[in-house]
Amino acid sequence: MSEKIKVGVLGATGSVGQRFVQLLDGHPWFELGALFASERSAGKTYREAAKWFLTSEMPQDAAEMTVQPVENAVKAMNDELRILFSALPGSVAKEVERECAQAGYCVASNVSVHRMEKDVPLVIPEVNPDHLALINEQRRNRNWDGFIVTNPNCSTIVLALCLKPLMEFGITEVRVATMQAVSGAGYAGVPSMAILDNVIPYIEREEDKMESEPLKILGTLEGSEIRNADFTVCASCHRVPVMDGHTEAIWVKFRGEVNEDAVKEAFKKFKTDLNTPFAPQKPVILREERDRPQPKLDRDAGRGMSVSVGRIRRGRLKNELKFIAQGHNTIRGAAGASILNAEVMLKQGYIS
Amino acid sequence: MSEKIKVGVLGATGSVGQRFVQLLDGHPWFELGALFASERSAGKTYREAAKWFLTSEMPQDAAEMTVQPVENAVKAMNDELRILFSALPGSVAKEVERECAQAGYCVASNVSVHRMEKDVPLVIPEVNPDHLALINEQRRNRNWDGFIVTNPNCSTIVLALCLKPLMEFGITEVRVATMQAVSGAGYAGVPSMAILDNVIPYIEREEDKMESEPLKILGTLEGSEIRNADFTVCASCHRVPVMDGHTEAIWVKFRGEVNEDAVKEAFKKFKTDLNTPFAPQKPVILREERDRPQPKLDRDAGRGMSVSVGRIRRGRLKNELKFIAQGHNTIRGAAGASILNAEVMLKQGYIS
Amino acid sequence: MSEKIKVGVLGATGSVGQRFVQLLDGHPWFELGALFASERSAGKTYREAAKWFLTSEMPQDAAEMTVQPVENAVKAMNDELRILFSALPGSVAKEVERECAQAGYCVASNVSVHRMEKDVPLVIPEVNPDHLALINEQRRNRNWDGFIVTNPNCSTIVLALCLKPLMEFGITEVRVATMQAVSGAGYAGVPSMAILDNVIPYIEREEDKMESEPLKILGTLEGSEIRNADFTVCASCHRVPVMDGHTEAIWVKFRGEVNEDAVKEAFKKFKTDLNTPFAPQKPVILREERDRPQPKLDRDAGRGMSVSVGRIRRGRLKNELKFIAQGHNTIRGAAGASILNAEVMLKQGYIS
Amino acid sequence: MSEKIKVGVLGATGSVGQRFVQLLDGHPWFELGALFASERSAGKTYREAAKWFLTSEMPQDAAEMTVQPVENAVKAMNDELRILFSALPGSVAKEVERECAQAGYCVASNVSVHRMEKDVPLVIPEVNPDHLALINEQRRNRNWDGFIVTNPNCSTIVLALCLKPLMEFGITEVRVATMQAVSGAGYAGVPSMAILDNVIPYIEREEDKMESEPLKILGTLEGSEIRNADFTVCASCHRVPVMDGHTEAIWVKFRGEVNEDAVKEAFKKFKTDLNTPFAPQKPVILREERDRPQPKLDRDAGRGMSVSVGRIRRGRLKNELKFIAQGHNTIRGAAGASILNAEVMLKQGYIS
Repeated sequence: MSEKIKVGVLGATGSVGQRFVQLLDGHPWFELGALFASERSAGKTYREAAKWFLTSEMPQDAAEMTVQPVENAVKAMNDELRILFSALPGSVAKEVERECAQAGYCVASNVSVHRMEKDVPLVIPEVNPDHLALINEQRRNRNWDGFIVTNPNCSTIVLALCLKPLMEFGITEVRVATMQAVSGAGYAGVPSMAILDNVIPYIEREEDKMESEPLKILGTLEGSEIRNADFTVCASCHRVPVMDGHTEAIWVKFRGEVNEDAVKEAFKKFKTDLNTPFAPQKPVILREERDRPQPKLDRDAGRGMSVSVGRIRRGRLKNELKFIAQGHNTIRGAAGASILNAEVMLKQGYIS
Repeated sequence: MSEKIKVGVLGATGSVGQRFVQLLDGHPWFELGALFASERSAGKTYREAAKWFLTSEMPQDAAEMTVQPVENAVKAMNDELRILFSALPGSVAKEVERECAQAGYCVASNVSVHRMEKDVPLVIPEVNPDHLALINEQRRNRNWDGFIVTNPNCSTIVLALCLKPLMEFGITEVRVATMQAVSGAGYAGVPSMAILDNVIPYIEREEDKMESEPLKILGTLEGSEIRNADFTVCASCHRVPVMDGHTEAIWVKFRGEVNEDAVKEAFKKFKTDLNTPFAPQKPVILREERDRPQPKLDRDAGRGMSVSVGRIRRGRLKNELKFIAQGHNTIRGAAGASILNAEVMLKQGYIS
Repeated sequence: MSEKIKVGVLGATGSVGQRFVQLLDGHPWFELGALFASERSAGKTYREAAKWFLTSEMPQDAAEMTVQPVENAVKAMNDELRILFSALPGSVAKEVERECAQAGYCVASNVSVHRMEKDVPLVIPEVNPDHLALINEQRRNRNWDGFIVTNPNCSTIVLALCLKPLMEFGITEVRVATMQAVSGAGYAGVPSMAILDNVIPYIEREEDKMESEPLKILGTLEGSEIRNADFTVCASCHRVPVMDGHTEAIWVKFRGEVNEDAVKEAFKKFKTDLNTPFAPQKPVILREERDRPQPKLDRDAGRGMSVSVGRIRRGRLKNELKFIAQGHNTIRGAAGASILNAEVMLKQGYIS
Repeated sequence: MSEKIKVGVLGATGSVGQRFVQLLDGHPWFELGALFASERSAGKTYREAAKWFLTSEMPQDAAEMTVQPVENAVKAMNDELRILFSALPGSVAKEVERECAQAGYCVASNVSVHRMEKDVPLVIPEVNPDHLALINEQRRNRNWDGFIVTNPNCSTIVLALCLKPLMEFGITEVRVATMQAVSGAGYAGVPSMAILDNVIPYIEREEDKMESEPLKILGTLEGSEIRNADFTVCASCHRVPVMDGHTEAIWVKFRGEVNEDAVKEAFKKFKTDLNTPFAPQKPVILREERDRPQPKLDRDAGRGMSVSVGRIRRGRLKNELKFIAQGHNTIRGAAGASILNAEVMLKQGYIS
């Protein structure tokens, strides 16, 4: 890997788009080559086009780049730009991502539109890296030069990473109540008048995603198909006045009695050998304090790529444990997830 | 009821104590006769002693009253002061409330220490007014002139009010995740540095209370004993940056399949004929909007005495529904609950 | 006044529009007759059209009214609708308000576009009710059947009400730093990602308004012209994470030395004899506590129509005092201000 | 400097104490040798004693250190511990800091008690490093082996750093309104019930400090005495719901007319040649955006050691400019300030 791979960002000015730009700055393998956004931004420098709201300064190189219209992604294809990270609005993502994949790009998408398609990998590298094999199936099926790989919804990623090490105990039912940060809805998504001193117990389509995506991710690849995991998830999703970091109260029911200590042990020994720049040392960090994890204190753990769990405790219901999980929704749950996917794809040879 | 009943407040300067003072101002049946607090406050006027933080002005009469030491409650007993509302810290409540009851007062307590004692009524008047009959048992057992009646913990009240109309469907399991307001912890209970931009997934002893109290409240009085309701509650309790109003995500599992519409109907027809000043017209208000109830918008419903529910929906789990409930934690969940208890006791003749 | 006057609201679905609807509900003199909003809302019931975010329930009558397009205000003119309260966006207000005034309506506007026009009264009834005489001049000048009367910007109202009783001491310079609530920017005006855990030290055009409007309001009517007050205002405006209520730190320099007690006395004796439904008993409430006024505790004083002041203290600069003022920005500072103007106009015979 | 200097922290468990521990971790010149706190914490490990609330993990070495009672600081003096950073509560700081200085320590104090004493340097190294010469005077006067050096109050530091480059223009009057973060009051200093959705327009003794300290800092050392700067400061101090970062609205009046561009230029060219680990590259960063600086976006600039200014604009008052400043109150304004002082003292040879 003597030379860096040039990458582009689709939807570069929004909340997740800015995270991509921030996280790609100084990346050892990837180099930002192009920024794509809507007509309104096209032609401006990124500094002019993006209302930057992250706490680090806008990277100098990106700031001076000229934002291109999304349509250019396909038209302007050249051999140097190999990966496109997508943070497009759902409404335009469907067509654009397909065209880009057809044209030969590796599209690493954070958007939900293609996630549940049979031949599209929905991947968390610490959980189901083998699902990337669907890439071959997808290219064959669709006769594409490139391909689309997706990462799950932000709240799903937090949940699925916690469930992975518990699969060995035989999960039957999962209930989860989320307390989600406002950044998950994009910059203008949640007006301050709506959320100051308040909880909003509804996030559009979020419960559906949390109830379906984990079953695909934790499912098994059989031939060229995923067989879904055979437990049930039931979610209740809520927005709280927190900037970044989704907190989840999780109940897991098992086939038989499971010991708290066994579960803690499973979390502790959950490691990965991905060895890529964004792979956290520990995908899940076990907190032993009685009042952790908390978004303000734990969201940046593992540079935002680790999920923290705590309060593992037996409830009053048979064969069931409850615990709290927390993860950074725009790093681990969005832009960082797509980047990690791309790293693993590169390492596994899917990007040439 | 030509003349008002004189009442006192134990622990009058704290968060719940102030609510008592506020809510009793202008009460048609009760009249504030004495304020009791710790040695530090004793001897001062209430205006000097209480760091008032409610949004209405401190009532004029209370402001000019001299705060008495708690010990005076018993010593200074006279026939005029008949009810004592207790918002004492748990550490001192046990002894003081007993002595006051023994001395002849009706103690309407918001404190947890006596709630689970066998002959102490734990009452929500819309749910189990018949449990007040334990008063007679209690006085007999303990040979007291007065008695103690308790109301549940704030988050329990919200839950139990919602479960009451669902009892007819045969509840077997309840899971609840709370998003609780900071006022539940008292004025200095939650430092701003702890909760701004944060969620704290732990509230001391809260889960225990939510898992045990509803079973007593929804239990049946058989002779002079309560037989607990025979379902199981499993709670996960969290603090969020909200001033007032607890929000609860609730899953209820039933013996058989239950229809959303049947549940909505049950909530709608849940009425009471208490006809006392603090009894809300509707104990439970059903919201049909997709994103309600919300604490900021719904906590003051029914002058803070109604619980609001919404998002009644079938989950992916068999025989189970999920919904959201919200209630004002220091009115419906604390001071207002004690006052309503006292009103009902007065009406039923327990206070003479 | 045996029968209520029918009134309409222009821009009824927005932040200030909702306040108009809320405050007009049950008004003893006025009755809501029509709701006007943009094309997007027109034809829907108000319940469907308005994303209601006030803590009281949407008034039943308004909820069932059909929202009309703004153009109807003029077209559909009938003799029954006599007053139009305007909370239109600045971009459309200019033309619409003029046409409505020309058509014969009394337009009581909260919008800034016409405020500084020479023959348009900019009125706070407790401060300069005599300026309403400009109405005659305006109708003459413009040959209109109706007329436009405006109230100042929200932060100006708080300031001007405080300055009025100090005019007798000879003001030369005023500096003011504001800490303004998010509701001042409208429902979607301030994204939560922008303001949670933050201060935004900039509000578009706000400083200009605060520096010019008070001079007109506190000016004197000479013949048919206002002579501006002859002091200078210098403002610095900031947004803080507060829902409602603008707080202002004010320095006032006088021609000579002025005593704190004299200023306090001036605030105390500042009364009005307006005697209309929305006129507060005290336009300015003096708080003696060392840490008041505070928006959470004081914004609802006088049902939101009183401004609270406190911390009147001599600074280290000659002939100068500093103090804190606070007022409810969408009641006293917007919808309530327009309604009070209309009440006074009705009483003074400008509306027939 | 082949070996690190051992340092101790007085008052190590509190808000500023934790910042000292965090910032000293990995410091190239200093090494944490001892942690001192009240009796309540003494004997426990730091992990047990400190309710850690910073977003980085507690440094491993500190976590395992045993906290000593403050009295040990003097008793246990040994030659290895040369500097004591003090974050003691004011009530105990006076005696303890004196005894420590007498015993031979260099006490770098963030506490206010000794700041205004004639022979105690009150230093911001970018502003008045020459004032450190008072150390010699102090040791002579008091016959001490060690000495006390102080840094200003958090809000003063932000102000004084901005005023320094403007001194050349001839300042006559300064007015400043602060919007201060809750961390300035210590962990339990501001209850969430007090500040959520609120502004508190009062901070005890803060205005006094802001009005007196800058005059000493910006004064000139004449012989062995400081002659105060000859302008006047008038402050109004307010708490807002922000975690970290004080924002200040500042008006500066000059002897003559001063151009905005000249002021911007002065900010830009304000550099220092301190060349120590905590000295920021730019003491003051000029922001050109119309809505900056903001605490959330700018507090971490220069790793928390740079102050950001913006919105430099002429007001309507003669010879006067207004602008906004922002700085991290517990880094630049407290622990970081003391550490920078110590670095400069070491470099200048005051610590041997």
